Amino acid sequence: MTAAPAFRTLTDLRAACLHLPAPDETAARRIAEREATLTKPPGSLGRLEELTSWLGSWQQDQTPRLEQVRILVFAGNHGVVAQGVSPWPADVTAQMVANFRSGGAAINQLSRIADAELRVIPVADLRPTNDFTQTAAMTEEEFLAAVQTGYDSVPPDTDLLCLGEMGIGNTTAAAALSAALFGGGGTDWAGRGTGLDTAGVANKAAVIDRALTLHSGSFSDPLECARRLGGHELAAIMGAVLAARYHGVPTLLDGFICTASAAPLLKLDPAALDHTRLSHCSAEAGHRRLAQELYLTPLLDLGLRLGEASGAALAVPLVRAALACHQGMATFAEAAVSQSSEASFEA
Amino acid sequence: MTAAPAFRTLTDLRAACLHLPAPDETAARRIAEREATLTKPPGSLGRLEELTSWLGSWQQDQTPRLEQVRILVFAGNHGVVAQGVSPWPADVTAQMVANFRSGGAAINQLSRIADAELRVIPVADLRPTNDFTQTAAMTEEEFLAAVQTGYDSVPPDTDLLCLGEMGIGNTTAAAALSAALFGGGGTDWAGRGTGLDTAGVANKAAVIDRALTLHSGSFSDPLECARRLGGHELAAIMGAVLAARYHGVPTLLDGFICTASAAPLLKLDPAALDHTRLSHCSAEAGHRRLAQELYLTPLLDLGLRLGEASGAALAVPLVRAALACHQGMATFAEAAVSQSSEASFEA
Repeated sequence: MTAAPAFRTLTDLRAACLHLPAPDETAARRIAEREATLTKPPGSLGRLEELTSWLGSWQQDQTPRLEQVRILVFAGNHGVVAQGVSPWPADVTAQMVANFRSGGAAINQLSRIADAELRVIPVADLRPTNDFTQTAAMTEEEFLAAVQTGYDSVPPDTDLLCLGEMGIGNTTAAAALSAALFGGGGTDWAGRGTGLDTAGVANKAAVIDRALTLHSGSFSDPLECARRLGGHELAAIMGAVLAARYHGVPTLLDGFICTASAAPLLKLDPAALDHTRLSHCSAEAGHRRLAQELYLTPLLDLGLRLGEASGAALAVPLVRAALACHQGMATFAEAAVSQSSEASFEA
Repeated sequence: MTAAPAFRTLTDLRAACLHLPAPDETAARRIAEREATLTKPPGSLGRLEELTSWLGSWQQDQTPRLEQVRILVFAGNHGVVAQGVSPWPADVTAQMVANFRSGGAAINQLSRIADAELRVIPVADLRPTNDFTQTAAMTEEEFLAAVQTGYDSVPPDTDLLCLGEMGIGNTTAAAALSAALFGGGGTDWAGRGTGLDTAGVANKAAVIDRALTLHSGSFSDPLECARRLGGHELAAIMGAVLAARYHGVPTLLDGFICTASAAPLLKLDPAALDHTRLSHCSAEAGHRRLAQELYLTPLLDLGLRLGEASGAALAVPLVRAALACHQGMATFAEAAVSQSSEASFEA
């Protein structure tokens, strides 16, 4: 465990991003050794087997735990809504924060199914960012404060972390940030968001293109991209992903916005997201491409496009199932089950 | 509720397959009406929204329940193992039944995560079928008895049913049955099963081709295909799918063998599997094609190839999540959340 860094400057933050802890390969090897003794054909639990190994290697423990599963939903507002990028009024961000707190949103129900603790964190008191078609979304100070909020929101004793967001206008920020980091223009990354029609998507793409033109001089610096084209809740998610890495907390990313929030870290270090898994592929247009750019293979693909960490929460039972099989199954010896006549398996 | 039919002849069974109950469209409509009032963009929960509607329309109730979730695993042995189609000895079927009963298998752990009751049913006392490269796998009497076993295993008060199987050699039966129903030969449908190498898969494909040649005169009759090329546990699964339809029980199919077991029903009535959902797409070679032939879109795609209803059990939390969102979320009016400015949504 490392003391939480104070991100006073972009240089501090960059340094934290460039010296990340590594996984525990010994724990992963011991988990693989036990996995091979369990009463099933080798590899027959598919991605579940990999999930157990992932849990153990980042928890640095060959006997991973899933007692403290936490869901953090970061909320933020966006100046770019002035450009008509959402059919919903910006007030909905605060109204949905209230709905989260009174238990009426989808994520409240999904947290119960996941047996996870839910916390909702309005970032920057829901003050909107600047309209990034006019200037940078955040000052350096605002950006660093949002990253720090996210970092400080992750309790170090968390066994599995789910990250998500709420913010009217934030698919526009995620699309602009993705384009800045991975190339392409507004039409490549703009989707329907919460329900735009075709004309609305075309406007959103044009808004993104104007922002890309304004900020194109900064595309080589991933943190500058996040400051100029992201948002408070996106910066907080990036901070939380970073904290999870330092605290040894396996982390489930949610949909398009959450994934875009984490993307600058991967640009700084190709191994920066190794402690994360992508919970699902969203129906939002840019998410499949973004997942490919990040080499993340989603666990679920159910046409969700809600955010709120909904996909991450839905993936928690899969992780619990993986661990339950690994820890609860009998070995061939214990169950007196005959083994295969094949000494080894090709695949 | 209908009294369980006694399948004395193939004609009795065929009649039961041709006059299937329909879903409750009123329940589905009322569920859609409530769904539209919940605090989220319309459609943003993707396939979860459809799952709730599916539950209600087959339970014939706009307020579906998930109290009695049951998992049935049918076990059977196969004469075709004499042709060297599996690297595992046939004894493993009985050994794994014992492992299920003592709680040591994957499905025991997954049943707990799914909060479901597990029952394991050895069909025909685990007597092997005939080797179907030589003669029909089952006599008419044996086949009907196995179907009846499956039918009688489904308690009518089940809210959600998960079906699965265990049987050394049964990917060969599933592949042969799939080929007979949907065309193609051994190489199109034979996969690695529990761990065959390349030479083993080639032998399995040749074994299937010999069986297809022997039984080709019966391919126009789906029930005859199931009798000649299936197995006891496959016939039982078909019977259970049929019982679920008559009792109004939404049903999750598991992998390749389970899906192939249900396929003859679809050949007799294109709507016969409307009360089922495919829980996952298996890594076993033929499953993706079979799912397409049956117009079933899997909920999960995690590279599983274990059987035992493992994929079906893994999908149960998704169904629970769907229902929890539908029944637990606040409406826009209740939560005082503003709605979208768009009167309607295109997609």
